[in-house]
Amino acid sequence: MIKIVLLGSGNVAQHLLQVMLKSADIELVQVFARNKSSISHLITKEQITSNYQDLKEADLYIISVSDNAIAEVSSNLPFENRLVVHTSGTSELSVLDDKNRKGVFYPLQTFSKSKAVDFSTIPICLETENERDYKTLGTLANLISKKAFAISSEQRKSLHVAAVFVCNFVNHLYEIGNQICDDNEVPFEILQPLILETANKITELSPKEAQTGPALRKDTKTIEKHIEFLKDSNYKEIYTLLTQSIQNV
Amino acid sequence: MIKIVLLGSGNVAQHLLQVMLKSADIELVQVFARNKSSISHLITKEQITSNYQDLKEADLYIISVSDNAIAEVSSNLPFENRLVVHTSGTSELSVLDDKNRKGVFYPLQTFSKSKAVDFSTIPICLETENERDYKTLGTLANLISKKAFAISSEQRKSLHVAAVFVCNFVNHLYEIGNQICDDNEVPFEILQPLILETANKITELSPKEAQTGPALRKDTKTIEKHIEFLKDSNYKEIYTLLTQSIQNV
Repeated sequence: MIKIVLLGSGNVAQHLLQVMLKSADIELVQVFARNKSSISHLITKEQITSNYQDLKEADLYIISVSDNAIAEVSSNLPFENRLVVHTSGTSELSVLDDKNRKGVFYPLQTFSKSKAVDFSTIPICLETENERDYKTLGTLANLISKKAFAISSEQRKSLHVAAVFVCNFVNHLYEIGNQICDDNEVPFEILQPLILETANKITELSPKEAQTGPALRKDTKTIEKHIEFLKDSNYKEIYTLLTQSIQNV
Repeated sequence: MIKIVLLGSGNVAQHLLQVMLKSADIELVQVFARNKSSISHLITKEQITSNYQDLKEADLYIISVSDNAIAEVSSNLPFENRLVVHTSGTSELSVLDDKNRKGVFYPLQTFSKSKAVDFSTIPICLETENERDYKTLGTLANLISKKAFAISSEQRKSLHVAAVFVCNFVNHLYEIGNQICDDNEVPFEILQPLILETANKITELSPKEAQTGPALRKDTKTIEKHIEFLKDSNYKEIYTLLTQSIQNV
């Protein structure tokens, strides 16, 4: 049984909370939240505190708050030499206060409040200062997911940048596709099987092998037609830049 | 029973051929292919011709060749007033020769030779000159897929442009993500659940609702760190342009 205190009540914190509550091998001792109402549907009021002095003993303190609040929360903790981790893809290990043993427990996934996720498929990126603490994080990671990776702060930074490309930017291209469909009275759902297949494909082929389309074929006639078709100057610019980038790989 | 002659032996043609062979209600009368060897593992040599004069009678002639060859193939057909369609997302109905009844049978999906696809989930975009021919195409579409849509040449053009954004460009962003991982010795597989979830998400939420990340949050500190982290000037440019685009929506 691993005893955990969770600090935070935002998007990631809520998803973590829900998956930890499901495991018989995790004892969620307490949640620290300034806004109790955001999680009161998940746990009892007695388990929630907004006072640092009331924090209970645990094997692991998970700080799951916005990046710019991690340092403050960790320095407010009224104890020393315990294992304290954050869940951020962007922040380094070193943002945590030195008085405790530091670690990172970063579940690499896109979380929406309104959509449930299957935690078992989410890779958890772990970082600690020593072997014993790594074992503790590894135990927790294996209780909620099938995949845990040792990832340094530097590697995590690169992963987060890569994630912006393959998630945030990709979703923005979906939005542009949706907008083009709307503008031309075509149902966007026609594109959904293509979107899913494009994502599924790279579990079997590398993205380089999976590339198709007019840019790769250097089909100048089609490319010109498409750029002419796009009325929005921003879309034109994105089309041109990504076409060039595909051709320069 | 619908009788079909397929003209072409490329990527799309081969996928169509395979799915049509599976249906008991489709009689594949003949395949026209200059390069017999590319499809000789799928059908008997007697069913393949490379001579227009040998083309047999059928309810429907499907021209599945590269865009710039459609006009030539359709004008070489030695008969008149039969239903002849192409399978292209880019070409208009009008590229087909006037001597036959024209149509489009466009399966909107990304096809790789090395990867099987489930045709039943592929939307088929149909266009004809009259109701009777639409019925014929609709019959065929329903035999191999669950989804058929009436899509005009103009609508199809917009769909194809949108498809470039949500498939070709998206895959290129996957490739950039892969490259960033390789450069930093992080396994790209860590990003795969994120990629799949990002694609799955928009079957429940609109891309606009699903958008997350530093650009949307206007998290300037993280954005600056990321741009500094990217050494490749092309990646920097793409990061900057897509971040601006997300913020301007």
